[in-house]
Amino acid sequence: MATLLNSSFLAACRGERPARTPVWLMRQAGRYMPEYRAVRRELSFLELCRSPERCAEVTLQPIDYLDVDAAILFSDILVVFDAMDVVVEFRPGPTITTPVRTHDDIAKLRFGDPDAELGYVFDAVAACKRALANRVPLIGFCGAPLTTLSYLIEGGSSRDFEHTKRLMFSEPAVFGRLLESMTDLLAKYLLGQVRAGADAIQIFDSWAAAVTPRDYRTHILPHVRQLIDRVRTAGVPVIMFARGNAALLEQIATTEADVIGIDWSIELDDAIRQIGPGRVVQGNLDPMVLLSNPDTIRRRVLDVLEAGRHAKAHIFNLGHGISRHTEPALAKLMVETVHAS
Amino acid sequence: MATLLNSSFLAACRGERPARTPVWLMRQAGRYMPEYRAVRRELSFLELCRSPERCAEVTLQPIDYLDVDAAILFSDILVVFDAMDVVVEFRPGPTITTPVRTHDDIAKLRFGDPDAELGYVFDAVAACKRALANRVPLIGFCGAPLTTLSYLIEGGSSRDFEHTKRLMFSEPAVFGRLLESMTDLLAKYLLGQVRAGADAIQIFDSWAAAVTPRDYRTHILPHVRQLIDRVRTAGVPVIMFARGNAALLEQIATTEADVIGIDWSIELDDAIRQIGPGRVVQGNLDPMVLLSNPDTIRRRVLDVLEAGRHAKAHIFNLGHGISRHTEPALAKLMVETVHAS
Repeated sequence: MATLLNSSFLAACRGERPARTPVWLMRQAGRYMPEYRAVRRELSFLELCRSPERCAEVTLQPIDYLDVDAAILFSDILVVFDAMDVVVEFRPGPTITTPVRTHDDIAKLRFGDPDAELGYVFDAVAACKRALANRVPLIGFCGAPLTTLSYLIEGGSSRDFEHTKRLMFSEPAVFGRLLESMTDLLAKYLLGQVRAGADAIQIFDSWAAAVTPRDYRTHILPHVRQLIDRVRTAGVPVIMFARGNAALLEQIATTEADVIGIDWSIELDDAIRQIGPGRVVQGNLDPMVLLSNPDTIRRRVLDVLEAGRHAKAHIFNLGHGISRHTEPALAKLMVETVHAS
Repeated sequence: MATLLNSSFLAACRGERPARTPVWLMRQAGRYMPEYRAVRRELSFLELCRSPERCAEVTLQPIDYLDVDAAILFSDILVVFDAMDVVVEFRPGPTITTPVRTHDDIAKLRFGDPDAELGYVFDAVAACKRALANRVPLIGFCGAPLTTLSYLIEGGSSRDFEHTKRLMFSEPAVFGRLLESMTDLLAKYLLGQVRAGADAIQIFDSWAAAVTPRDYRTHILPHVRQLIDRVRTAGVPVIMFARGNAALLEQIATTEADVIGIDWSIELDDAIRQIGPGRVVQGNLDPMVLLSNPDTIRRRVLDVLEAGRHAKAHIFNLGHGISRHTEPALAKLMVETVHAS
């Protein structure tokens, strides 16, 4: 890590204020880039996730084009199911053909060994590191315990998380044991990514807003805390991104996460007020702003940067994944605006 | 209205504390009730919405079974498009086959006359009032300007509101004029419902969370305020329910809404702290609690009631529509628990 040519992202993770505010974009390697679409004409999404060299190729596309300050492994939070004999299909939304609903389903679940079964992810991390040649750090990631488990129980994306919450409300002990096993698997998975070379980790609790703040505190937060603590023993910074409910921010602020990801549903200065000025924040431009025009984009980027000054340190990012309808040139303009100010 | 046999709901709307906390459920006339499913075997959803006498029948089903303190007109926020020559199909999600995207689409839009074109809704209101025979008050409703417009622009439900926000960010003046026309139409529509007999109005901003708090304040809130003010001139209480982002509550609290609906994404006592103790609140049990068991339901209902004591007055409700997988007996248990405490 000492040899990184651009370490502004890791400096900000540590709470420093590098000369330029570091910036990367959630889903920066993706469908808005013609180079990515070209690769996807050859490979399905899952084939790509399982091809370490092609993952590295795709991971580096936005580094070359956008000049962002961090790379994030091209992968998906659901590939972890490969260590559980759970089959995910993308149609194009993720679909799990055998959702886990009954006691019988739960009894049959196998929480396997990421080291033995997710080798292709670790190979992809290593391939990315080689390809990056220390230009910028590499972020590894996983889904948070609730988010990952909810896919397993619902069988895909969900609006109301009916099955997950039915289990949580009706059989909290069973639900807790499932989250515990999931957390253990995810911790091993992330530690494997760090061993393979990841310089930082982001945990995506994409469906944190599935439950009330009270239920998050009671049923979910202890597992999030556990996961963060275990990954931090490996010495890399952890970014915790719980999306969709600003009312959860004060809970996230009680964890040891090095960086707190802020989605666009709250103004960044309000978020910083809630979590206190001593934390590092990441975020939070509404990705749809990038569908507008250069003037609007510049103005909104500067507003987010200004708000970010109230935090200990700030990593500029979108408040959610970049839209696939974004013109790459406008994403680049965003990065340039951050770097220039 | 003087002759209402049960006026606890309207008393609470006025800020009074009736002997029993009034309670009704969002989507209380719906698929979880076998009586409703029986009607739907005869009529499609839209046929039902357009049949005043059958609407009244369905509207009264939960009054009879649950003993709730208010009826809400059985209808849909999208029937207002019948005054715009916009065709909605339910497949089963709402689909608008001619979404409004281009300047050309916008130029062709017609904001018609609810009095002339939505007569069947007013007839349904009148039929409900007759059938209710003053047992409980009747709530009329509509979608908020943003929510209604977003269906028109997106062509249905949306996750990221790409088209709506592209327009808002790129052409705020055009977007503002659309919202203005929509607000005017919705105001006329609600005033028509009041003239037909509705005793209160609820405005559903189901997709309020589509935009950032800042954009809601700039682009959306003025229209919400306008709509509320116009309906209040008719002398009925207005419930404003903006769903999905607790960070918007303080903005909603700046309107003249008589009652502020609280969804389940925030704890009710925290919501009351944010909007101040001088407001009437409605909410906010997580509907998925009703999928659990009697003990859990009783406990969670009492917790919400306890939190509600911090407000000026409290109308008990769910924090979102009741799930169609709810056992009717458990919904009834919820109502009994509210009434008994």
